[in-house]
Formats: sequence, structure tokens, C-alpha cells
Amino acid sequence: MSAAPAQSPLAAAILASLQEVLGNRPVALHEPVFAGEEWAYLKECLDTTFVSSVGKFVDRFEADLASYTGARHAVAVVNGTAALHVALLLAGVEPEDEVLVPTLTFVATANAIRYCGATPHFVDSSESTLGMCATALRAWLEATTERRSGICVNRRTGRPIRALLPMHTFGHSCDLEGLLGVSRDFGLALVEDAAESIGSYYHSQHTGTFGRLGTLSFNGNKTITTGGGGAIITSDAELARRAKHLTTTAKVPHRWEYVHDEVGFNYRLPNINAALGCAQLEQLPGFLMSKRRLFDRYAAAFRDQPSVCLMREPAGCVSNYWLQTLVLDEAVAGERDAVLATTNAAGVMTRPAWGLMHRLAPNRACPRAPTPVAESLERRIVNLPSSAGLA
Amino acid sequence: MSAAPAQSPLAAAILASLQEVLGNRPVALHEPVFAGEEWAYLKECLDTTFVSSVGKFVDRFEADLASYTGARHAVAVVNGTAALHVALLLAGVEPEDEVLVPTLTFVATANAIRYCGATPHFVDSSESTLGMCATALRAWLEATTERRSGICVNRRTGRPIRALLPMHTFGHSCDLEGLLGVSRDFGLALVEDAAESIGSYYHSQHTGTFGRLGTLSFNGNKTITTGGGGAIITSDAELARRAKHLTTTAKVPHRWEYVHDEVGFNYRLPNINAALGCAQLEQLPGFLMSKRRLFDRYAAAFRDQPSVCLMREPAGCVSNYWLQTLVLDEAVAGERDAVLATTNAAGVMTRPAWGLMHRLAPNRACPRAPTPVAESLERRIVNLPSSAGLA
Repeated sequence: MSAAPAQSPLAAAILASLQEVLGNRPVALHEPVFAGEEWAYLKECLDTTFVSSVGKFVDRFEADLASYTGARHAVAVVNGTAALHVALLLAGVEPEDEVLVPTLTFVATANAIRYCGATPHFVDSSESTLGMCATALRAWLEATTERRSGICVNRRTGRPIRALLPMHTFGHSCDLEGLLGVSRDFGLALVEDAAESIGSYYHSQHTGTFGRLGTLSFNGNKTITTGGGGAIITSDAELARRAKHLTTTAKVPHRWEYVHDEVGFNYRLPNINAALGCAQLEQLPGFLMSKRRLFDRYAAAFRDQPSVCLMREPAGCVSNYWLQTLVLDEAVAGERDAVLATTNAAGVMTRPAWGLMHRLAPNRACPRAPTPVAESLERRIVNLPSSAGLA
Repeated sequence: MSAAPAQSPLAAAILASLQEVLGNRPVALHEPVFAGEEWAYLKECLDTTFVSSVGKFVDRFEADLASYTGARHAVAVVNGTAALHVALLLAGVEPEDEVLVPTLTFVATANAIRYCGATPHFVDSSESTLGMCATALRAWLEATTERRSGICVNRRTGRPIRALLPMHTFGHSCDLEGLLGVSRDFGLALVEDAAESIGSYYHSQHTGTFGRLGTLSFNGNKTITTGGGGAIITSDAELARRAKHLTTTAKVPHRWEYVHDEVGFNYRLPNINAALGCAQLEQLPGFLMSKRRLFDRYAAAFRDQPSVCLMREPAGCVSNYWLQTLVLDEAVAGERDAVLATTNAAGVMTRPAWGLMHRLAPNRACPRAPTPVAESLERRIVNLPSSAGLA
């Protein structure tokens, strides 16, 4: 833990801009808003005693998610990490494979690869999207891989590279066109980690629906929450059937017999959590408008600060503005910890980007492309209070 | 699916006995009772917006579970399967190890071994407890294993046998004294799957607290429910600390930094589910009395049926009577499907034991002791409606 500089005019200016928008009071980074039918739906669960893995809210939440995202199918699961694990398995990831993943992401993205027995292969991000950079990735794969029997193989490790796992950072869509091109040209399955991007679109199509499978998260800090929860989305009926089977202990349907035809998982979302999800999803359009309003207010407040940039949705994209993000100029990156210290000390919760994945102790031996942009972004990102209730 | 015999006097007699206790109406196998503070605690979660992984009900539920079971520590997790996975890891189970597990159990017990990269090694059960038979196990290990550098090794496969994972079937305690002896004499870690046995005791000590670690489940069909949930219990402070760390993404505590020091899991129990658990645990003593009353009524109703035996708590044990269990005599085992068909057709839900683990497709190549008792029990077990609300 580095000590913050005693005085930072930048930190003071940023706090002042934040308080101009938020008022002079403690503000959380992201807290949920329960202003809809949460209450009624939870009560229905208790009254009918259907709180667990079977129940109408699970079915309804899955149908509502499919309808909202435009994916043909959604399978509700216990959290976004579980969704990633099973999506990767269904994309064909096997032990000893490698999976391309941004080094700038939450730890779950990389961990899910490990759960498959595979190895994360870290790649760089783009300054304009904060997500996986398709251009750098293509150059890296051209320089370091070759096709063997049609499979993309890392020449240094000799291992197959099976899939591409971009993440839509803070709700901003990656360059999906570029990544789809890489996926096609190198024969890699595209799985989208859309944990942060419900309500975000790339060229009018919902994030998470471009790859073979996508995953969502409804953790308590997300745009909508089920307490803890997630979903796998796909438009492939057979993958959806397999996702449901694998996440529900691979039980073969029967009136009373207990037979399981493969090693499955207990990743079911309880009905009580799905009930919360149904109520939250009804309010999502309103939440998105509030979050966009908050962006506008922050944009006005930070307009005259030349050394910081408020992250704006990429061209051609609609972002959900899940987490509002200031990107400091390189020249003032050294003041990031002062900004974090000053704002948090004033009760205005802010946070930096995650520590880059390739630097975490368990990942230090993993393969990695050069990641200069991610390393720079890591030093410069400050997330701001972002709750839908703030605007 | 085998066709049921058209007529079975035994099936008719069993249905009549059940209806004598339950009345002439549809009855579920096990449904929860929400008659306490569930409502108030859920409302508190919504009102405070603490529905997710941080919140006072998680802390309270863990403290209440520790206090109730007498384990020094409890770590709440997302379900019983997740609890088993992490408990096995903490017991030292590694890839290529074998873990001894009853073939008569729910699939989660065996699957959790696979999640560690280890192999289930199936063993027999005892007719008197329905759980792992310590006598048969000792004889099997004496005949087929040897010590190499102090480690118990399966002579046939050459793999280390690392742990012993008994399960307290339907809430009846295993022969823990016998199993502790095997654990000691063969140098195996004892982990107890107490998913079904909250409120069950062996010689006045709560099940799950004899092994190095124990696991609980609060699935919707259990004695108390959190929708979906589970816990790891242990009296070892360092194991408890490791369990909390591994189940919460192995994040290193810091005011704002995101650093994770190993590959962890997202197995946190959401606060909203823990809130339900706190309310349920307050009612557990009453639930246990109801379930014991139901046992007494069934015992009276089945007293005059010579070819069936109602499963009674083993000597020296107190059972929670989670699932009431009829064991048919071998002579009438062929009528089990008729009993299931007749009772379910009348709306009285009954079920057989799980299909034995060693017969499931993914487990057919796993090592296995002779399992004559489990094979016989599998043909003869019928679980009866068991909800606390029935008596």
C-alpha cells in the first residue's frame, strides 16, 4: 500500500466536482435500487414456499432475460463466475488449452478458465473501449501462433488456443466486429463476459449475443441484482439445453429416479433470487436512463478539468454506464492514490481498476502478449459513484 | 423406466398407512415452513439495500451456525456442493488422489471429489445407519492398500487415498467412532458431508464436527433452507480462515485495491439468502420436534406391516429425521416401483434412494469396494413425505 501524497490539487478538484454532482454527503460506489415489485415477488415465494431451485420466477427470469437481450435462450445460474465456467466448457475449452483473456478484468474472468483446467493467456486492452484490443490481438496471434490440424496453437507453449474471452469493461462494449474477425480467422470460439454490460449495445445488438455464448452477472454491485446470480445467454438451442443440464447436476428427467449422466454442477439460481431479478429487470430501462443522466452531470462537472477524461460510450455503441470512470492523463497518474484517498476519506467512494491479472501471484507463469495499454490504464482509472439512485 | 406391476397389495397397504397419518390429500415430499421472522429479515435486506455478499445476516448466520453445531467456526457458502468442494481442497485433496465415499449418496458428494481433480473410490454402507460402513471399509483398506512414505496408497491404481467422505444419510449419523478409527489408522483426512443432518447428533455431539471439516446444505428440500445455500464448519481457526478466503475470490483485504493471492472461488452466500437462514435456524428446534412427532405417527401406522421397516435413529444417535424412510424387506423389494407408482399417483410424494454412484455413466471406471449392502438398500428404500409442517 503506497502512501498518498499529502496534498494534491487534482484530488481536491476532483472531489469538488464530485460533490457538485452528488452533494456533500457519503455516497457508495454502487448500491441497488429496490423500487418495484421486489417486495411482492419475494412475498409470493414465501407464501407458496417456492424459494429454491424450482419455481416460476426462475423460468420467468430466463424468459425475460432472453427477451431483453435478444438471445434466444437464457439459463439462470448462481453467479457470473459459474456462468463463465460452464460457458467455457460448452465452448469446447479443455484441460491444457489456453484461452485469450484481457489482463485488465475482474479476477472471475481468469479464474473460470482455471476451473476448466485451462490456462489464461493475457492480452492487451484498447484505450477507446477499455476492452480487449482486436488489432493488437491479431498482430500477436499472427506473430506467435500457427495452425496445426486446423487448430490455433501457441508456438511457445505448444498448447491449443481454444477460445477468446473478452469482457465489456464497466459496461462499455468491446470492438466486437474486430474480435469476431479474429475469432473467425484464427478458429477461436468467442465467449463474451457481459457481466458488467446488461443494457449495453454494439451497433444496436445487445452485448453478450455476438459470441457462441455470453454471460451476465447480477451481483449486488451490478446494474440489476439478484443478491448473487448470473446467466448464460446463447441463441443456440442445443448449447442452451446443455447449459441447463450441466448447471442442474446433469440429472436425467424422471418422475422419481435420480440418475445423472455426466459430472454436472450445482449452479442453479434459487427461485427467491430469481424473483428479485424479475422485479429488477422490470426497472432496468429506468435505471439506464438514470445512469445516463448521471454521466451527463459528471461530464458537465468535469468539463473544465484538462487532465482527466470521463469515459464515454465508444462510437457506435450504447453503454449502460454501469461504473462511471475517470481516466487520468499519464502526466498526473502518480496522483491516482491521492485521488482515491481524498475522495474515500470524504465518504465519496471511488476505486481503481483491478490489479492486472498477469501480476497476480497465481498467474505469473501464464503466457502473455505485451500489455502496454492495460498497464497504463491500470495506473489511471478511477471509478466514481454510479448508482441509478443518484440521478 | 420399469413398468410397475398392475396390482400390489403391499403398495395399497402402504398408501393406506400413509393416508392414515397424512389424510387423503396431495402431500409433497418435503416443503419448507416459513413461520418465523423470514419476512422481517428479508424486508430489512431490501430496506437497507444489503442483499448481496456483504451484510450482517451473513455474519450472523455464520455465528448462529457455529453456536448451534458447536463447531468453533462456520463459513456460509452458496450451496452444499460448493462447501464440499472447498472442504476437500482444505483437507488436502489434490489432483490424482482418491477419496473414499459411499456409493449410496447424492451425486454432489461424488462430484465435489471430481472438482478437485481427484477420483471417487466407492465403498459400502451399513444397514443400521444407511451410511459408510466402518467395518467393511477397514477390511477393504487392509486388503487393498499399503503405506508408502506414510501415505495410504491404493495398490491397484497406485494413487494416494487422501480422505474419507462419509455422508449422514437422510439425517441419520454414520458410525463416527468407527470411521474416526479408520481415519486415524490409515492416515486419511475425515470430511463429513452433513448436508442432510443439521440437528442430528452422534453421542451428543453434532454431526459434521467430528472430522477435520464438515459441510451443511440449506437447499429448499432440507430441514432448514436459505433457498440455496450451504456452510463449511470446522473447529480449526486456520482452516476457517482459509475457507473464508477461498470462497470469497481469495481477495487480499485492502481499502480499495483488488489483489487476489490464489485461484479462489465465488462461493459467497448472498445476504438475502442468509437472512432466510437466520429466520429458519431460529425455528429449527420446533421443526425437529415436528419431524420426530411425524416419525412416531408413521411408526404407529406401519407397526403392523411385517414386510417394511421404518428407519429409526441408530443406537446412541439423535436423528433429525430429515427424510422419513421405509426399508422394504428383500422379499418384497420387487414391489418398490409399485409402491412409488401407487403413492405418487395418489398425490402422496415418495421417492427411491439415489441411483448408486458407481453405476452412473461418469463413474463406471472408478475404483470400488464390494457394495452388497448399498445394492440391496438401493432396491428397498422408499422415502416418505417428511415436512415439518405435517405433524
